[in-house]
Amino acid sequence: MRHILIIGIGAGNPEHMTVQAINALNRADVLFIPTKGAKKAELAEVRRDICARYVTRPGSRTVEFAVPMRRTEGRSYTDSVDEWHASIATAYEDLLERELSDGQTGAFLVWGDPMLYDSTIRIIERVRARGRVDFGFDVIPGITSLQALCASHRIPLNLVGKPVEITTGRRLAESFPEKTATAAVMLDGEQAFQKVEDPEAEIYWGAYLGTPDEIVISGRLDEVKEKILSTRKEARERMGWIMDIYLLRKGADFDD
Amino acid sequence: MRHILIIGIGAGNPEHMTVQAINALNRADVLFIPTKGAKKAELAEVRRDICARYVTRPGSRTVEFAVPMRRTEGRSYTDSVDEWHASIATAYEDLLERELSDGQTGAFLVWGDPMLYDSTIRIIERVRARGRVDFGFDVIPGITSLQALCASHRIPLNLVGKPVEITTGRRLAESFPEKTATAAVMLDGEQAFQKVEDPEAEIYWGAYLGTPDEIVISGRLDEVKEKILSTRKEARERMGWIMDIYLLRKGADFDD
Repeated sequence: MRHILIIGIGAGNPEHMTVQAINALNRADVLFIPTKGAKKAELAEVRRDICARYVTRPGSRTVEFAVPMRRTEGRSYTDSVDEWHASIATAYEDLLERELSDGQTGAFLVWGDPMLYDSTIRIIERVRARGRVDFGFDVIPGITSLQALCASHRIPLNLVGKPVEITTGRRLAESFPEKTATAAVMLDGEQAFQKVEDPEAEIYWGAYLGTPDEIVISGRLDEVKEKILSTRKEARERMGWIMDIYLLRKGADFDD
Repeated sequence: MRHILIIGIGAGNPEHMTVQAINALNRADVLFIPTKGAKKAELAEVRRDICARYVTRPGSRTVEFAVPMRRTEGRSYTDSVDEWHASIATAYEDLLERELSDGQTGAFLVWGDPMLYDSTIRIIERVRARGRVDFGFDVIPGITSLQALCASHRIPLNLVGKPVEITTGRRLAESFPEKTATAAVMLDGEQAFQKVEDPEAEIYWGAYLGTPDEIVISGRLDEVKEKILSTRKEARERMGWIMDIYLLRKGADFDD
């Protein structure tokens, strides 16, 4: 039977790699590397650096593959994602059949941790459910950008004994500050924080976390909002891409 | 000036250590190791194993110290925690003054990630604010038990594009299923899941995650509730201690 390893490789710093992830890389006969276009060339470079630094097993192969694009026109958000996952599942199925022999192990390298706002696990489950290719799989956790954010700001994610909501930019308006006093926001293409009007809100923002280009800004939201927006815009133009996340919070540790 | 490294060492598997954490361990002149009593002897063993396996710097010292106990009698929860943190801050202050010379680096090894339901960062900030000992500090992220839970169950934490609430057993009743469709529950001394009555709820439970004693159970909550309670009770009696967390979820990826 074929075996798949879904390996979290951390948030951009090659030193985020765990010993478990390094050992998993070295159990793979084939490393599957998605090509994501030239825009995020720095990220592709980090992935190559990780393989060059940590893969010591002789004879393992690297197979690059194109990830289908998501189509959004005339579709609801969920239909669009559902259809996209189906087309990635077909791509994975072809890869596994073509590149992996019976008894061999293939590895997918996932930014951050495969558990957090990543669909590799659910797409691999789709491929299994189709039943065309038979395989087992394991998941290896990795450092997420949320952890890199908190480490760089040197802050706990939660207030003492209090909950935290992890959410997306699309859903922030449903969340902070009414529903939760701490919101960690990922996948925000619209800078949803700019619509939050709360004089007590604090923000901890970070871009290119874990990489040499990392930028972090924190402070009272109404005081640093413009600075984050202009810094983000300038960085995005200069680099050609941006990945950023942030934490919004109000209140203090021993409030009741 | 003295320097402190607050290092996340993962959730019980020594292979959760990142390259960054290993390098940080080896920058420290002094490794501060809390003694937590004999009950969790296995965890103390993992910590010793991590130091033995990864500390290669010659001449670094290990300093064990007793962590003050939290007093709960006649105090509110927040007062109890606040007072406890103050007494730990005093213990840290003494340690830093006594064990670390000017220019030296000390490391605190924290289970999981210092950002998640751990107070080392906020206690170190207290010590700094007091001003008796002058130092800088850095935080190194680590794999949390929540990541180990999802990896072992081979599941994503979130449904597609949906939020997740991380909360405590004390607060679960405020949270799931009304407020959130996915709740990750840590620090639950009362098995709050047993009070959840929802025929659609699913649970992903894990104890001793990352260690050779790891146990995981998943399924429809009403079908596996009793099995988790009896497994937990039996394991706790056998081992003398237990650490467990779980994820409660209802709904599916492409529900709207």
